[in-house]
Amino acid sequence: MINLDVPRTAPLPPGEQPGTASTFSAFDAASLPAERPSRVVVELARPLIDGGRFAAKASQGSPLIVEADVFADGHDPAAASCWIWHDSNADWEEVPMRPIGNDRFRAEFTPSQIGMHFVSVMGWVDHFSAWKHKLRAELEADTGGSTTETSRAKYFDATIALTLQDAEAMFRHAETLAGDDADAASVLADARQACATASIGLWLTQPELEAAMRRYGRRHPVGRSSVMAPVWVDRPLALFGAWYEFFPRSIWDRDAARTGGRLDDLEGQLDHAAGMGFDVVYLPPIHPIGEVNRKGPNNSTTVESQDKGSPWAIGSSAGGHCSIDPALGNDDDLRRLVSQAESRGLELALDIAFQCAPDHPWVESNPQWFRHRADGSIRYAENPPKRYEDIVPLDFETEDWEALWHELRNVIWHWIDHGIQIFRVDNPHTKAFAFWEWCIATTRQAHPEVIFLAEAFTRPRVMERLAKLGFTQSYTYFTWRQTSEELQSYGIDLAERTIDYLRPNFWPNTPDILTEELQHGGRSAFVARAVLAATLSPLWGIYGPAFELVERTPVRAGSEEYLDSEKYQPRHWDLEQPHSLAPFITLLNTIRRDQPALQHLEGLRFHPCTNPALVCFTKPNPTSSGGVLVVVNTDHEAQQGGIVDVDWAAISLAYESTYHLTDQLGGEHFTWHGPTNYVELDGDGLNAHIFTVDGPSAESPS
Amino acid sequence: MINLDVPRTAPLPPGEQPGTASTFSAFDAASLPAERPSRVVVELARPLIDGGRFAAKASQGSPLIVEADVFADGHDPAAASCWIWHDSNADWEEVPMRPIGNDRFRAEFTPSQIGMHFVSVMGWVDHFSAWKHKLRAELEADTGGSTTETSRAKYFDATIALTLQDAEAMFRHAETLAGDDADAASVLADARQACATASIGLWLTQPELEAAMRRYGRRHPVGRSSVMAPVWVDRPLALFGAWYEFFPRSIWDRDAARTGGRLDDLEGQLDHAAGMGFDVVYLPPIHPIGEVNRKGPNNSTTVESQDKGSPWAIGSSAGGHCSIDPALGNDDDLRRLVSQAESRGLELALDIAFQCAPDHPWVESNPQWFRHRADGSIRYAENPPKRYEDIVPLDFETEDWEALWHELRNVIWHWIDHGIQIFRVDNPHTKAFAFWEWCIATTRQAHPEVIFLAEAFTRPRVMERLAKLGFTQSYTYFTWRQTSEELQSYGIDLAERTIDYLRPNFWPNTPDILTEELQHGGRSAFVARAVLAATLSPLWGIYGPAFELVERTPVRAGSEEYLDSEKYQPRHWDLEQPHSLAPFITLLNTIRRDQPALQHLEGLRFHPCTNPALVCFTKPNPTSSGGVLVVVNTDHEAQQGGIVDVDWAAISLAYESTYHLTDQLGGEHFTWHGPTNYVELDGDGLNAHIFTVDGPSAESPS
Repeated sequence: MINLDVPRTAPLPPGEQPGTASTFSAFDAASLPAERPSRVVVELARPLIDGGRFAAKASQGSPLIVEADVFADGHDPAAASCWIWHDSNADWEEVPMRPIGNDRFRAEFTPSQIGMHFVSVMGWVDHFSAWKHKLRAELEADTGGSTTETSRAKYFDATIALTLQDAEAMFRHAETLAGDDADAASVLADARQACATASIGLWLTQPELEAAMRRYGRRHPVGRSSVMAPVWVDRPLALFGAWYEFFPRSIWDRDAARTGGRLDDLEGQLDHAAGMGFDVVYLPPIHPIGEVNRKGPNNSTTVESQDKGSPWAIGSSAGGHCSIDPALGNDDDLRRLVSQAESRGLELALDIAFQCAPDHPWVESNPQWFRHRADGSIRYAENPPKRYEDIVPLDFETEDWEALWHELRNVIWHWIDHGIQIFRVDNPHTKAFAFWEWCIATTRQAHPEVIFLAEAFTRPRVMERLAKLGFTQSYTYFTWRQTSEELQSYGIDLAERTIDYLRPNFWPNTPDILTEELQHGGRSAFVARAVLAATLSPLWGIYGPAFELVERTPVRAGSEEYLDSEKYQPRHWDLEQPHSLAPFITLLNTIRRDQPALQHLEGLRFHPCTNPALVCFTKPNPTSSGGVLVVVNTDHEAQQGGIVDVDWAAISLAYESTYHLTDQLGGEHFTWHGPTNYVELDGDGLNAHIFTVDGPSAESPS
Repeated sequence: MINLDVPRTAPLPPGEQPGTASTFSAFDAASLPAERPSRVVVELARPLIDGGRFAAKASQGSPLIVEADVFADGHDPAAASCWIWHDSNADWEEVPMRPIGNDRFRAEFTPSQIGMHFVSVMGWVDHFSAWKHKLRAELEADTGGSTTETSRAKYFDATIALTLQDAEAMFRHAETLAGDDADAASVLADARQACATASIGLWLTQPELEAAMRRYGRRHPVGRSSVMAPVWVDRPLALFGAWYEFFPRSIWDRDAARTGGRLDDLEGQLDHAAGMGFDVVYLPPIHPIGEVNRKGPNNSTTVESQDKGSPWAIGSSAGGHCSIDPALGNDDDLRRLVSQAESRGLELALDIAFQCAPDHPWVESNPQWFRHRADGSIRYAENPPKRYEDIVPLDFETEDWEALWHELRNVIWHWIDHGIQIFRVDNPHTKAFAFWEWCIATTRQAHPEVIFLAEAFTRPRVMERLAKLGFTQSYTYFTWRQTSEELQSYGIDLAERTIDYLRPNFWPNTPDILTEELQHGGRSAFVARAVLAATLSPLWGIYGPAFELVERTPVRAGSEEYLDSEKYQPRHWDLEQPHSLAPFITLLNTIRRDQPALQHLEGLRFHPCTNPALVCFTKPNPTSSGGVLVVVNTDHEAQQGGIVDVDWAAISLAYESTYHLTDQLGGEHFTWHGPTNYVELDGDGLNAHIFTVDGPSAESPS
């Protein structure tokens, strides 16, 4: 049930009759409305999630797109505005909407504040346009029709003079509303005078008159969208950013200066991530690791005394979710690490994994939060086909759910108090949906800057629900979408159907997922997947050292698990390898920062290619014509060539023209003519282009 | 804003915790819910129009399809029911839903009553299924795993016995709920006993246990859809029917027995329409015709004294919208005509055209309902490019709108009092949307059997809005969708995107529209268009005599108006022509009555053909496998052949099988093998097949 209490406490969008809904509910239809409804109806289309049940997402400094179908009965044109409200504003802000065809109106609004906004759309009959249209038709009939001066004059007298006369009241009304706005009032008075004296001329098309009538023309009564759309506006990093994941307990032999292993010795890692152009460094859980049922290397259930266990098996006698593993450091080390990251332009993201090792303190202190079997035992966690013998799940069907919810939220708030503002949430789909909605909403009330990334690799509707509930970003199926056709259908789904609430974060690998494509495709697969992730999505990330070093040995054939996975054992990484992808990844992040087209998802368009091994897409610049054209070879062994057929209108360039392309990967310049061009890419070698494109702008649709 | 007052006064759907919404609103999320929310979320998908703002449509005796995405967190399966409420029922009715893949659940409910219904969907964690799944996996591991009897027994003791033990409480709880239902209680007690004694066996898969657990298994707490969907259920004629339009003032020389001209002499016309299998006869307006600015033949503005004018120029000194043109008859004649129609299985539909001749009584009695120009005149109506100098429009922006709305509704109620239950509404898009919503809603409250057909040929969003507002049926663009590709994209749009609220009524011609296709395509075009209209849509109609007689001369080249149009002059029709299409139309209506597949729109599917001149589609039987396959040649001159590739799953038949086809038009039998077959159709002659198809049923998806 939709509850509009919040916007009700806000001032309503202005208008002459602020209380008038566009029409009235199907269930109210049996009684007459209190006042004459508007002849204009407004059907809000974007952003509107499940009829307003959930907030859409937007980002500070990036255009929020509002679209609505707005139309009057009959043939009178409609005009529309959207109104935006944010609780820091005393009043609603009006943004004029423009018609984009088929009765749809559109506006872009760039939020300057973070937090909850509400969007309402208002429409009215544009009597001024209707009148101008009629007058123009009559003027054309007048000059084109009759030939003798006498009959021409007669027609003028009888028809056009009357039409001019009709408009006097319209201008007089606007003049009154203009009041103190002397410039507008004067323009309107001139128009009224011109009508009175039947003098037609250039005044009809004056932009000043347009503006004055848009502002002061009669809008009574206005139609409104039957719902207001809530929109949560995040800070820019929610929309555009690059993530780097590493295990703090591992040691890096970078430049022969061994770093890592403890929170107070990660500056080398931070330098490395910052140097490659990443924005976020994300650490797997840093809490004490359970000793009961601890896993050995390669997920072995037999364990040696020196084995460290999985950081996701959280809790031991040393503490639980609000503690730091003493082997890693203490609270002060973490605070210092946050500062060290900040000084390098990085943010630190922590892992939130709401699950317990069997020796987690909660198991004893709050046994009612776990589901006990008939023999008193607790069943271990599963995420089929994975088995987690070292982990017991929390029971969200507990009668003590309120205490559990508060305690879990306290964990997040505890780390916020330590300066953490980004959380990567482990398997949120195995916790109750309602908990997340409450947890994220209440956390955001106090800390609107906090970002939650949902690590859910599960069924589509479940992943979409988590995004609707408030998760800022989402892991995706990108990891397993490999052919051109798969990338295309998935990309379009993300860029169109779910774009207003789900922000995809594309990861070619994670500590859990070394895809068969990477295993078998080798270096060229790593390059192609990095290009695709970094250009298809404004958000991308890698599980760092393993990706840079093209680590691709699975624990066994047919498995997506790494051999000697860092999940179960610390590693020593020597990053100074000649085959490292670090320079290439640095270039990718540089291109992303330079190209506004790569900093949003709106407008992604795929283009046909005669060779299905090549995937070809464009992304438009958000506020100007042009953008980026990417072509990638998905065959990691053989050279592939084909003719791409680019609809340049997708990046607002003119059809049948000359286009100047610069490959940002190789630096070469190309000139293309018209929509089609032959492209050839290596299997192992140059297997991708990221072109920036200039050309003449397409006619704007006006 | 959605107002759920009506369903709030109804009892809520039952459940252990009836007040629990599946989750809570985005705006409420800041406070804890009053009780533990369900782990299951329910997203209602069908039927739901604009988030519940408008009622969906269904028909008495035809399946209403309910679909929802229902899922729990984690890996536990969800179960779902939909609940249907109608105000004649004391309680909600439960309809179990079945999973159809990708977390979607579906149910069909066949309404037995007309009027407003509400649909709510409820979901819960299916703990019984989850437990069975676990037990089965353990049993398989048990029998397949260890080989020695001792270790097998040990595994059984340790694992399976515990799993059985886990279920005792589940069965005990259900047993308690079963209470007086002795059969179910006994089945549940047996299951509980079997668990206690660790005896596994066939009882696990007994349908009786399934049913008992479905009914009495714990559903606490249930998740619910956040909105209830209103569904207006019409009588069957709203969904399936054939319309026949004729002008009562014209004379028919049928069988040399001249009939027509007056309401008391239309039995010949009724016999004719009934004999051809039509359900509805629709008469253009029967009111007094204005004398001021009356039109002459062929829309001439010069008029002779004997000219009758257009029936749509309503009102003169003889009366207005509640009067009958004295030349046609009186109220008694109309009542008698209603009875004469009824005795032939026909219903009489009247035309509602809310517009006035300049001498309509309202122009003088209620001048405030018209928009006056600066010189006191009233502008005539236009529906560009058409001009109606003999008609003045009503002004829905009048300050006296309440009186106007009531008066217009009174017109409809006046004719309902005369026994009319079907109204074809002329140009509803030139009247205020809000008026229609109120008018239809309040009319239906008293007369739920009334049917409104919207005659709006305008922009798509406007036509869709009228359907949402309550119009029972809608005229469509079918008239101008002529190529296979056009028919396909339009057909799919109607059968998928708008199916739950817009019922298309397909007309090959109207008195206003003689398409160029009919003008140039001749008899074969008339045949093809009739087949398409009668089989694509469960509702179709013709402007009768002109269609039967293949009348196809336009008033001038490039015009869609008929020469000597009946709109402006009575005609004498000699229907006994050898080239009459009446026998063919009779056959079409017979096939429609015999084939349930042609009596609904759900499940329409087009299939590819190598020749784009052929259009090929299937419609499934609503409650059994099989259905109808239609192939039509859209080229009205040349023979065309091609290979059609039919996805037989679209009518629930098995893939790669033998299919038995009977052409209901020609009576021939065919045997097809597999999906593809060559089809050849004449240009002028046999240019369509309407096959009924039998074959082995496809495996149900279960």
